[in-house]
Amino acid sequence: MLKMNIETFIGCTHTYNIADIVLFGAPFDSTTSYRPGARFASRAIRAESYGIETYSPYLDRSLEDQKVYDYGDLELPFGNTELALDGISDLTSRILEDGKVPVMVGGEHLVTYAAVREVIKKYPDLHILQFDAHADLRDDYLGNRLSHATVMRRCWDLTGDGRIFQMGIRSGERTEFEFADRHTLMHKFNLQNLDTVISQLGGKPVYLTIDMDVLDPSIFPGTGTPEAGGIDFISLHSAVLKLSGLNIVACDMTELSPPYDQSGVSTAVCCKLLRELLLIL
Amino acid sequence: MLKMNIETFIGCTHTYNIADIVLFGAPFDSTTSYRPGARFASRAIRAESYGIETYSPYLDRSLEDQKVYDYGDLELPFGNTELALDGISDLTSRILEDGKVPVMVGGEHLVTYAAVREVIKKYPDLHILQFDAHADLRDDYLGNRLSHATVMRRCWDLTGDGRIFQMGIRSGERTEFEFADRHTLMHKFNLQNLDTVISQLGGKPVYLTIDMDVLDPSIFPGTGTPEAGGIDFISLHSAVLKLSGLNIVACDMTELSPPYDQSGVSTAVCCKLLRELLLIL
Amino acid sequence: MLKMNIETFIGCTHTYNIADIVLFGAPFDSTTSYRPGARFASRAIRAESYGIETYSPYLDRSLEDQKVYDYGDLELPFGNTELALDGISDLTSRILEDGKVPVMVGGEHLVTYAAVREVIKKYPDLHILQFDAHADLRDDYLGNRLSHATVMRRCWDLTGDGRIFQMGIRSGERTEFEFADRHTLMHKFNLQNLDTVISQLGGKPVYLTIDMDVLDPSIFPGTGTPEAGGIDFISLHSAVLKLSGLNIVACDMTELSPPYDQSGVSTAVCCKLLRELLLIL
Amino acid sequence: MLKMNIETFIGCTHTYNIADIVLFGAPFDSTTSYRPGARFASRAIRAESYGIETYSPYLDRSLEDQKVYDYGDLELPFGNTELALDGISDLTSRILEDGKVPVMVGGEHLVTYAAVREVIKKYPDLHILQFDAHADLRDDYLGNRLSHATVMRRCWDLTGDGRIFQMGIRSGERTEFEFADRHTLMHKFNLQNLDTVISQLGGKPVYLTIDMDVLDPSIFPGTGTPEAGGIDFISLHSAVLKLSGLNIVACDMTELSPPYDQSGVSTAVCCKLLRELLLIL
Amino acid sequence: MLKMNIETFIGCTHTYNIADIVLFGAPFDSTTSYRPGARFASRAIRAESYGIETYSPYLDRSLEDQKVYDYGDLELPFGNTELALDGISDLTSRILEDGKVPVMVGGEHLVTYAAVREVIKKYPDLHILQFDAHADLRDDYLGNRLSHATVMRRCWDLTGDGRIFQMGIRSGERTEFEFADRHTLMHKFNLQNLDTVISQLGGKPVYLTIDMDVLDPSIFPGTGTPEAGGIDFISLHSAVLKLSGLNIVACDMTELSPPYDQSGVSTAVCCKLLRELLLIL
Amino acid sequence: MLKMNIETFIGCTHTYNIADIVLFGAPFDSTTSYRPGARFASRAIRAESYGIETYSPYLDRSLEDQKVYDYGDLELPFGNTELALDGISDLTSRILEDGKVPVMVGGEHLVTYAAVREVIKKYPDLHILQFDAHADLRDDYLGNRLSHATVMRRCWDLTGDGRIFQMGIRSGERTEFEFADRHTLMHKFNLQNLDTVISQLGGKPVYLTIDMDVLDPSIFPGTGTPEAGGIDFISLHSAVLKLSGLNIVACDMTELSPPYDQSGVSTAVCCKLLRELLLIL
Repeated sequence: MLKMNIETFIGCTHTYNIADIVLFGAPFDSTTSYRPGARFASRAIRAESYGIETYSPYLDRSLEDQKVYDYGDLELPFGNTELALDGISDLTSRILEDGKVPVMVGGEHLVTYAAVREVIKKYPDLHILQFDAHADLRDDYLGNRLSHATVMRRCWDLTGDGRIFQMGIRSGERTEFEFADRHTLMHKFNLQNLDTVISQLGGKPVYLTIDMDVLDPSIFPGTGTPEAGGIDFISLHSAVLKLSGLNIVACDMTELSPPYDQSGVSTAVCCKLLRELLLIL
Repeated sequence: MLKMNIETFIGCTHTYNIADIVLFGAPFDSTTSYRPGARFASRAIRAESYGIETYSPYLDRSLEDQKVYDYGDLELPFGNTELALDGISDLTSRILEDGKVPVMVGGEHLVTYAAVREVIKKYPDLHILQFDAHADLRDDYLGNRLSHATVMRRCWDLTGDGRIFQMGIRSGERTEFEFADRHTLMHKFNLQNLDTVISQLGGKPVYLTIDMDVLDPSIFPGTGTPEAGGIDFISLHSAVLKLSGLNIVACDMTELSPPYDQSGVSTAVCCKLLRELLLIL
Repeated sequence: MLKMNIETFIGCTHTYNIADIVLFGAPFDSTTSYRPGARFASRAIRAESYGIETYSPYLDRSLEDQKVYDYGDLELPFGNTELALDGISDLTSRILEDGKVPVMVGGEHLVTYAAVREVIKKYPDLHILQFDAHADLRDDYLGNRLSHATVMRRCWDLTGDGRIFQMGIRSGERTEFEFADRHTLMHKFNLQNLDTVISQLGGKPVYLTIDMDVLDPSIFPGTGTPEAGGIDFISLHSAVLKLSGLNIVACDMTELSPPYDQSGVSTAVCCKLLRELLLIL
Repeated sequence: MLKMNIETFIGCTHTYNIADIVLFGAPFDSTTSYRPGARFASRAIRAESYGIETYSPYLDRSLEDQKVYDYGDLELPFGNTELALDGISDLTSRILEDGKVPVMVGGEHLVTYAAVREVIKKYPDLHILQFDAHADLRDDYLGNRLSHATVMRRCWDLTGDGRIFQMGIRSGERTEFEFADRHTLMHKFNLQNLDTVISQLGGKPVYLTIDMDVLDPSIFPGTGTPEAGGIDFISLHSAVLKLSGLNIVACDMTELSPPYDQSGVSTAVCCKLLRELLLIL
Repeated sequence: MLKMNIETFIGCTHTYNIADIVLFGAPFDSTTSYRPGARFASRAIRAESYGIETYSPYLDRSLEDQKVYDYGDLELPFGNTELALDGISDLTSRILEDGKVPVMVGGEHLVTYAAVREVIKKYPDLHILQFDAHADLRDDYLGNRLSHATVMRRCWDLTGDGRIFQMGIRSGERTEFEFADRHTLMHKFNLQNLDTVISQLGGKPVYLTIDMDVLDPSIFPGTGTPEAGGIDFISLHSAVLKLSGLNIVACDMTELSPPYDQSGVSTAVCCKLLRELLLIL
Repeated sequence: MLKMNIETFIGCTHTYNIADIVLFGAPFDSTTSYRPGARFASRAIRAESYGIETYSPYLDRSLEDQKVYDYGDLELPFGNTELALDGISDLTSRILEDGKVPVMVGGEHLVTYAAVREVIKKYPDLHILQFDAHADLRDDYLGNRLSHATVMRRCWDLTGDGRIFQMGIRSGERTEFEFADRHTLMHKFNLQNLDTVISQLGGKPVYLTIDMDVLDPSIFPGTGTPEAGGIDFISLHSAVLKLSGLNIVACDMTELSPPYDQSGVSTAVCCKLLRELLLIL
């Protein structure tokens, strides 16, 4: 009768102490302005992960060989943004203190800010690599300075100019693109310049944030703000494989919204990409 | 070329100045802890209202004969509860000042508090009649004092004992039922005691709040927290017709969540009930 | 290799010549003003009929014992109402000539008119018994005289006063209810007066038309215009059993719209009711 | 860092050793002939259980006060019926040996047989109380003797005449109803005779099996074979409350099929009923 | 209290008098033979347009800078094709008389014919550029000469040979392709020859009609007749950008069917493409 | 009254005797471990086939010109794998004896084994060409040797080394890829090496098996185990066209799961590909 009812991402069965990587969920979507539901993402990803294999034929490596602890989900209050962000920061901080790499599954994109503000304390020269459809560079959104639409602007408050690399961006207000011209390194529409970006990031501590809506809605319908004209899965997957040489000190995956993923395909995409991400760290 | 692209609830085509009743939407659901989406309710109700008639064969009366102005929806920020509630309070206050009856379509149930705190200023002896599956009497919910789960407790802060009548309640924590025993007038599970309640409310200014989840999920699946064992539509409809003798000074209808209403039936239920509600005022 | 790929309603496996009853589908929904899809009803009902049994424990009778031929579906043009109605009339006429009882599965409710105009030729004293949520008594609808919203008015053109019995009606324009007061026998909201109606219809040739939206949307969400406040399945089923003593010379079942029946429950309801209907004829 | 990623039914947080009741899932649906998916039921019920409260206002009792251990789900092979049933029997047997009450969540109805054959070893005078839409009394189904459609016949092989009480039955072949006349105690269509049945079962060891399709499809669309004309939730709930005086030595709940429960209402119904069931044991 | 409840496509807030472009909806789908629902497209596109930005980073231009008036939807009768087409023709005619460019959102593809027959009166040398999966060149369809499947044939009746350019066509009867060989300029399967076509159309008045099913069903599932093997969004988007040098005197976008767009992605695709289309005019 | 209610794949209207090709459905999915529903595929494909044309503009050929008999679906028992496979083998054997080409529509992929074991009796030098996302080379799966995950291993038991060509494989356990290195000819991830494979298969009798999940989930969401990173429709379609020179003696198409194909796009994809497949044979 020792069996216990534990649910983890497939193959992430190591204990905290032994683990090099700590996976956790940040089920928060209170500032989502359009179609909420990202709060259900981490739970859905765990449940559906049993539809994929632990072995990657692309990398010829298996999750069993990687030491990952799945912490489960944080319990975050809805409707109180600051308190929720504090919860994320606390856990991130503890994981970093213990010398492990935090891998966060959102939730909406604002959760990235709560992680970045801790990671940059440990790695002051932190650079950010963002895959996203949206610039997320507004200074405020309907009066809120903490919003999914302002998250990279808040990160820029921490990093300053020239340390945020934005790829795949295809939506935003005119002012956001103007801001990017002056303060970030934005590569619009696709990942064509990735090799250049990788060489620029070489040797730097990197925070990788993947807003899954960088993908085309054909393969990723299950998100709050589907934006046509995105990249396909193979492009994103190839990009992730190329990142294996970087010094990724923390990362996240955000904006899957399971209520808008009736076919389950978007969740399956996250599961596969998360496996590959865990394998390259 | 005078045609304009105005979308109102069916038959609500009067101007503000001439109107006796002002209908407005409060698209807010940030504190929803389970299945969000009530933010889309008012828009869905307007769009689907063209599937019903303006004429009620139950009342032999038509919306064309009632002077209703449909204000449309408030623009409310997500993730900032206090600011959103202020927006609702402001509009409610202005409608009351102009001598009209506010009819609010939520949104989650917390919006009721923002309206009640204004209505009670004009009607200090305000009584509240609540149809609901849930007691909503917690003092806080995961640390938040402003939540869909605390809304009637916050209203009680304003009214004090003996002025909140709760009907159909079938879910809550033990402490909420204990609180109700001491401070509110709760009739559990159904509307059997409605005649008594109506006679108790006779002559009082009444705020009517209908959390649509008082209905059984068979007829109302499209809500954040479906709770089996509810009343059927005919019971709720009959109850509303009986309220025509009360002095209802403001009212609301909350907790329709269109993303969980794939069949559209829950929205159709709201449309029909809202028509009847507008006709008895 | 004699197996053939024939799809019929369950248990309706007799040949045309031997059959007493001929079942056919009329997949037409061109005048549907709100949510189209009734064109798919007959096909869905056949396919799902294999989820029920041929035996009715209510009647202790089985479809195998009843001689029913399933003709399949008419091929009807879309967008050309008159031509489509002619197709229905032709087949109805032939079935009647051959001394069999036509049982039509719609399609939208307008198909009833095409059948009735043939049946009344054979049975000039025809009476009509309608179960429906809507009066369908408009003289025209957006300029069209042939519409799902005018079908009973068109039937009244054929029968004249006092021969249309309407039950369960709970929606319509004021003028339709006024028309009913003068020209039809309408019993609003439910089937409480069914026994009286049955005794009035005793000995008359009866056309039975069941618009399935007479049911409450809780049990029948899959229809174009869901109208809350309907009857439950047991009430409708009991009513059908009571009709076994009438002289039903033709009948139909209309307004299932499978695209709005995601759960499949509305289709299952039609299958069970159709079995019972076939068994009482 | 002691938090673990354990998922249980809400409030079932006791250890195995201390528990009086052991809840477990049997995710098996290989013999389902129509719409599969019951394999996902136990997982869905656990996940959605956080949408209800642990406290029952009907019973004024809370799950925290009941000692329940949630074992999680058995791992059962698909496509190999005998092996899957053996897995269920093994666990049932161990739970009984340890003096605890097994509460199984299916899966399709055939899982009941695997439990009953163990329970009757411990309680040779076992009686079975079945709530169901279907008789499940065929001797074989398409050549299979082990099928959801034969499960009560297989149980009868174990109990013999007069020990199976069937309630709410409204579907089956003629031969099943004839078998019931001679060998079981069947009460068709509803639960009207429940008081009599309860008095007959007084003092006997009772296995309670609830096939959730006994409910009307309006409140329970999410099942493999929806059968109209069922009972409503309040009737089933009241029935369960009445059973508190019986000596229930084991029980199960079967046939929820989450893929056909798009609105989530059927799952919510199971959660609430399971809470009440656990509270009356 | 000046706020009004106007819903327009995002950023289309100019008055009719000042506008250069008039956007209107033609909610008609009566001749759709397969999966109806295009009637809901214009309404869905307006509502979902608030999920995109008014600014296009591709064009570095914003809808606020373009003078577009959104007329809203025509009220068209269902089941009476001729009357519905007349309504479209009337409005098109008035817009052209006032020197503005009509941009129509269908509805099914037949609506194009109603617009073209007016546009060609003003521009006798009108050429038509069609992006579509289907040839739409039948002379009649089940006896109807006015049908979504005959629309380009009806347009050819007006233009004669050599003035209809068809791109992306991948479905039709053999006779349609034979007709195209003799009478139209058809480029099958993709848009590879677009540059040639553009140079051929240089200087001519062009009617642009985009049947959205030219897109692959992976990115555009929400249509009546999904036809695999289509082009991707980036190809269609690039094509539209290239058209900016043409003299487009009127255009339309047809065949979105929201009931088959559960994920909302197809609607989002229309919103983005419509923005770009309005910006290049 | 000669019309009969026969449902076939579009254009497959020849009799058995005259036919060169026999199409049949194998509705079996009992060993599916994840998301069942492939049992409904053949029925869905037939019904939806009327949404495509019989004419292929790619091949300039029409199904009317090809002699295909549609046998309909086998009746297979659920939960008894061996018996179901026997049914498939029997029919395959008879079709081969009569000198016709069997084309099977699954069902899950295990059905392939039942066909192959008959085909290889007639063609001892049989080679197998598999398009698939999964290797399906396990020796057993949860103890079962007959499973969708073992099907190609079972086929290898029959063919031995070097006769199974696997293309598009992107998922499996490490041991399956190791097995492939030694025993099959596997081309991972895409179809780039197809020309080589075709030349290797020249002159050999070939069994073609298409597991539709070889397609990317963007175009094929409706399957039990969606695996991102697949090929697009045009690639698969082009590949099928290239196979026209091979000696295909039998083929199948498997793993469409209609319950997970809400948009209907996956079914439409199967219809189009099946038409092309029938046309190249």
